[in-house]
Amino acid sequence: MMKYNKGLAVLALVMPGMCFAQTGEKVLEDFKPSTMNQPGKEYPQVNSQGYARFRVEAPDAKAVNVSLGLGGKGGTDLTKGADGVWTGTTAGPMDEGFHYYHLKVDGGIFNDPGAQNYYGSIRWESGIEIPAHDQDFYAVKNVPHGLVHEVLFPSASTNSTKRAFVYTPPGYEKNDKKRYPVLYLQHGWGENEYAWMNQGHANLILDNLIAEGKTKPFIIVSTYGMTNEAKFGTIGSFDIKPFQTVLINELIPYVDSHFRTLSDRKNRAMAGLSMGGMETKTITMANLDKFAYIGLFSGGSFKMDDVNATPGFKEKVKLAFVSYGSREMMDERMRSFVGDPKANTEALKAAGINSVLYVSPDTAHEFLSWRRSLREFSPLLFKD
Amino acid sequence: MMKYNKGLAVLALVMPGMCFAQTGEKVLEDFKPSTMNQPGKEYPQVNSQGYARFRVEAPDAKAVNVSLGLGGKGGTDLTKGADGVWTGTTAGPMDEGFHYYHLKVDGGIFNDPGAQNYYGSIRWESGIEIPAHDQDFYAVKNVPHGLVHEVLFPSASTNSTKRAFVYTPPGYEKNDKKRYPVLYLQHGWGENEYAWMNQGHANLILDNLIAEGKTKPFIIVSTYGMTNEAKFGTIGSFDIKPFQTVLINELIPYVDSHFRTLSDRKNRAMAGLSMGGMETKTITMANLDKFAYIGLFSGGSFKMDDVNATPGFKEKVKLAFVSYGSREMMDERMRSFVGDPKANTEALKAAGINSVLYVSPDTAHEFLSWRRSLREFSPLLFKD
Repeated sequence: MMKYNKGLAVLALVMPGMCFAQTGEKVLEDFKPSTMNQPGKEYPQVNSQGYARFRVEAPDAKAVNVSLGLGGKGGTDLTKGADGVWTGTTAGPMDEGFHYYHLKVDGGIFNDPGAQNYYGSIRWESGIEIPAHDQDFYAVKNVPHGLVHEVLFPSASTNSTKRAFVYTPPGYEKNDKKRYPVLYLQHGWGENEYAWMNQGHANLILDNLIAEGKTKPFIIVSTYGMTNEAKFGTIGSFDIKPFQTVLINELIPYVDSHFRTLSDRKNRAMAGLSMGGMETKTITMANLDKFAYIGLFSGGSFKMDDVNATPGFKEKVKLAFVSYGSREMMDERMRSFVGDPKANTEALKAAGINSVLYVSPDTAHEFLSWRRSLREFSPLLFKD
Repeated sequence: MMKYNKGLAVLALVMPGMCFAQTGEKVLEDFKPSTMNQPGKEYPQVNSQGYARFRVEAPDAKAVNVSLGLGGKGGTDLTKGADGVWTGTTAGPMDEGFHYYHLKVDGGIFNDPGAQNYYGSIRWESGIEIPAHDQDFYAVKNVPHGLVHEVLFPSASTNSTKRAFVYTPPGYEKNDKKRYPVLYLQHGWGENEYAWMNQGHANLILDNLIAEGKTKPFIIVSTYGMTNEAKFGTIGSFDIKPFQTVLINELIPYVDSHFRTLSDRKNRAMAGLSMGGMETKTITMANLDKFAYIGLFSGGSFKMDDVNATPGFKEKVKLAFVSYGSREMMDERMRSFVGDPKANTEALKAAGINSVLYVSPDTAHEFLSWRRSLREFSPLLFKD
């Protein structure tokens, strides 16, 4: 059983944070289609200030609402025009980065027909992207691209065939001798194995870091963390064992036998976001013979109590990386759970452990925090 | 320019065919969630006769309709219960296999929140699967699985980065010497590069055929055929040249340099469904130095006029494969376009060409026809 029940429950309750400018700000009319729209779809749109505008055709509907725009306060109500089309703009600019959302049409929950779909909250949700000032690090550029492989691997413990996505760095397929280290990278609660490649752009982040010479080329593996087996509200009863068995006994041996990996502990890392960070902490600390680099993205931090309770931690852990979005650091509930990641990080450093804290500016418990976390984490990996 | 404008227009207008049993048939209450539902979603459901049942929450809506159920006749109207939930069952059993659909809620088009999404009709549509009596050939089985690779390749001619999905057969990644033939496999109008792997199950079909020893292991490449550049209704103005340039000058060299392919013409095939079949016919006949095996799935047939107008056809084409769903063979508009594929096939045979016609029983212009076409086509490939 995981030790972090209270924390998991808190994480699941933290809503994406939206920060609004003062009312009265002039809304600039430079709206453009979101980069996450379906091909050719004009709406939703985003302007240069971060306001989002929606347009939904439902001529006979009584009420149409967008879940985005006023986090926790009812979203954005759309207004019906004379043409029967519903439109509306958020009351203020939204945080940079990726946001999940959905529509409420006459009391029913539907996706926005203009947006592409991303798995979050245990359903395929609509997604919108507010262009970040630093979006270049996950842009599709004219650099050598790695490949993302969809893998179906046998899982005897669950009597099923499971899926993983495996990123191999540029050149992997051309050189038949070279072997690579591996990062196992987990999604959060309500998400699945698609998250890190689809909305996380993990493959593009690595392509770009490698092209700039900022990180050693490595393989990334993302599979389903079985995080949705626990129902919302009862997440405290989540049992790590079934997923740990799939990861340690089934997926890692599969990857090591099907890809050209370096399979010793010094060449294996694990990281995860939110509940995936909790999984990462529990699994790596119980398996330090298999992992040397650990990343918790918005998913707790390492305390000296953890270190002292885990034989070999000081000798074996080459990197204990912790990150947060700056907005969730300010959240009272989050603070009450994680304590002070900065103080924890300093305590580990003082004990001679390579401990790093990264705080993503002006982002909440959302994917831009985690894209940036991966960007910061990757160059620190596989140094020996 | 393509020569088949009239045919393309016809194909785009042929609606999926639904065949209903006589009214009065007793509907069996053995409904189960569709295999294409989102995880954990109970609806839509399908019973053993092929009836589909829908359930949509939209308590304040005035009208909810499902586009499936009475092809071309308005679909299935749902009825609101006392609990505010809309439910309804198709008026009869539907054809076996995969169907695209969507909801109409108070005049707006939305997807079914219970179903997964599949790109068709130039949008991500909902999908439902009516279990086919022969579904075993595309089932996920405990056999060695190949990998599906997402590839981003540079396209100078369109000044963009394009995506392709590449299937490599089981064992490809373990043996660093063996080289494989390649099938280029195209989707239809309104679809994209995801279609053949997502709703076509091309990877599973090949895994199973290879496990049974029925086909030589080969690589499959699916990219976007740029078929949606032409608007519905003006499909006759589709220009093949931009896509031909991407395929011949950019994608094929990329695949041959990044994967262990056999790159001579005897080891390269092309096939496509519907408008992708039209693309296949035009591109292969203009590039017989590059392709030896050709498959047109619900996308026209080869006439002796084609053969006579194409120098080298008889010597170079190792297989001219044509297929249809039996229901579209009965469609008057389709007949008027394709003439008589059986007579055409016989004429080619008489001229000494390896010409094969396959008709999928009891299916229309839909994916079960094309899954079966791939199953029939694959064992005939790469015989030299």
